[in-house]
Amino acid sequence: MAGTLLSAVAWVGDAIEIIDQTKLPASCEVLRLSTVDAAIDAIRRLAVRGAPAIGVCGALAVVLGLDEARPTSRAGALAALDEIVTRVGSARPTAVNLSWAVRRVRDAAAEGSTPAAIRERALAEARRILDEDREACRRIGEHGRAELASASRILTHCNAGRLATLGWGTALGVVYAKAAAGEPVQVFACEARPLLQGARLTAWELMDAGIEVTLIADSAAAPLLGSGRVDVVIVGADRIAANGDTANKIGTLALALAARHAGIPFYVAAPGSTFDLATPSGDTIVIEERPADEVRRWQGRLVAPIDVPVWNPAFDVTPHELVTGYITDVGVLHPPFVEMSDSGRGTPAR
Amino acid sequence: MAGTLLSAVAWVGDAIEIIDQTKLPASCEVLRLSTVDAAIDAIRRLAVRGAPAIGVCGALAVVLGLDEARPTSRAGALAALDEIVTRVGSARPTAVNLSWAVRRVRDAAAEGSTPAAIRERALAEARRILDEDREACRRIGEHGRAELASASRILTHCNAGRLATLGWGTALGVVYAKAAAGEPVQVFACEARPLLQGARLTAWELMDAGIEVTLIADSAAAPLLGSGRVDVVIVGADRIAANGDTANKIGTLALALAARHAGIPFYVAAPGSTFDLATPSGDTIVIEERPADEVRRWQGRLVAPIDVPVWNPAFDVTPHELVTGYITDVGVLHPPFVEMSDSGRGTPAR
Repeated sequence: MAGTLLSAVAWVGDAIEIIDQTKLPASCEVLRLSTVDAAIDAIRRLAVRGAPAIGVCGALAVVLGLDEARPTSRAGALAALDEIVTRVGSARPTAVNLSWAVRRVRDAAAEGSTPAAIRERALAEARRILDEDREACRRIGEHGRAELASASRILTHCNAGRLATLGWGTALGVVYAKAAAGEPVQVFACEARPLLQGARLTAWELMDAGIEVTLIADSAAAPLLGSGRVDVVIVGADRIAANGDTANKIGTLALALAARHAGIPFYVAAPGSTFDLATPSGDTIVIEERPADEVRRWQGRLVAPIDVPVWNPAFDVTPHELVTGYITDVGVLHPPFVEMSDSGRGTPAR
Repeated sequence: MAGTLLSAVAWVGDAIEIIDQTKLPASCEVLRLSTVDAAIDAIRRLAVRGAPAIGVCGALAVVLGLDEARPTSRAGALAALDEIVTRVGSARPTAVNLSWAVRRVRDAAAEGSTPAAIRERALAEARRILDEDREACRRIGEHGRAELASASRILTHCNAGRLATLGWGTALGVVYAKAAAGEPVQVFACEARPLLQGARLTAWELMDAGIEVTLIADSAAAPLLGSGRVDVVIVGADRIAANGDTANKIGTLALALAARHAGIPFYVAAPGSTFDLATPSGDTIVIEERPADEVRRWQGRLVAPIDVPVWNPAFDVTPHELVTGYITDVGVLHPPFVEMSDSGRGTPAR
């Protein structure tokens, strides 16, 4: 269960280092990000992806921004903070973790009395978010393992694993927790068109960890679930509204419908930072639409007519009625989520 | 609505000519098949595909087989017929049209009293199947147009059009009938992983015909159907059991579930030759499983770990409860289908 994978995001020598996920599974390359623009670009083109991982990358990018701005006064540092937080926080619209993380870094940093203290507090807060995510993944894994003690055959979508987080992952956190405990576990991974995070990333990181994985086309999930070969579906989340409606990688809704049809439980696994209690339901979640060529081309090569119009939403919203439960760092929850943490973010109610 | 497309399958100068569908949309090339082995290979590697088109290709391949065998007696010709029919009929297992077409050619040919008469009857019967399919497509289109007079925004899957049949197509027959009548029509095409027949073929042939088409990843269909932008789903079929359970391209079941969830009608369009009344329900339909590399690679390039196990069924079965109606050449039907035609094949009951 060891695996060769380094952390998806790290702070090394005053720069961010990420594993360039656009290069997997062909090669596992570390990409060094020394500027805010480089970090935003990496987030936009999905070199780093997964709601928790882009949250940490964004948090660390605030430090890069302060280093670039070189403010000479507290007022200058605070102005720079606001500018960076706005810019980084809007790099991708759907995952709530990104705007949450950069605002948290800003709020912590703003208490510093000098530019140096502000920078120090920003880095400390970003590192705290990183450490908390690692711990949240561990707890999600353990809560999921307890909830799903009799389930060993797990279907997942996209990548909600070590490459999407700073730890074990969310959906795959349950898988790794089972494997670490010596329990039998076997994964079916949907490939996740158009960018194939399931094929490229989930299959790779599970094989790297020595866990049995079978890859399927997304549309094969419905008959697979009907065949009796899957015990449970577990997916991650990019944003969970107060009523439990869940924005996650496009294809999640189809999986939830197929699971319901087959009578298979369907779980969402996510840390508290993914819950957005300010959003009452999925109806108001902004869904990012991505470029047509993600569907029309593969690695530059056309797989469709060059000028065919494309509708390419990155996410869909699964209504809470289709979700059996939410595996979080504080336990397995059921909506509605009403309790707020001190930071104003949703720590879901038990 | 004209379009540049030639017939998907034709008999030209004692050989079969097909449009090589593995080359679309990059180029539209005619491939000449002069031997039974070449025809079987073309069917297996999907250079020709679509249940009606492979039926006609198989029927014409029987003539190629007689020309290769050069029988000198009636008994020799009948023995050759049986051998060819067995070989061609099993080239792909799921579509019922293939085994139906080759048996029909054999039965017609076997009445000939000399090798030459047997060959002549085989070719005449294969051509009759071709002509009947063209006419069936036209009737399917007209029946669908009448049934769906108020629907203009159609979602379809894979390719059930001019490239899958000898005429307008089945699901796309309804689209072409609307366009030919000057009625508004707009298509959303699922790409149909793993082999992308929707992206490569449906998008291409609709653009070729000047019909508005928007391409989506298969997993985007569920939120699209929920968004109110689609009036009806129409798919083709590879085999329809007596109770209406329908085997069609993998992904059809997920579409039917999403349509049901969104309250959108879901139709199957198919000629009588696709109804298999000898199969009581979908439970006993053999589902072809195809090579892992169809999912792991794209045009030879890896998109997943080289040795990741894959489950790659070519089709799934949609239970009849999810089907609003069956648009056929004899009208729009509802199961169970009990009436048999003279040939023992299912002409569905009205």
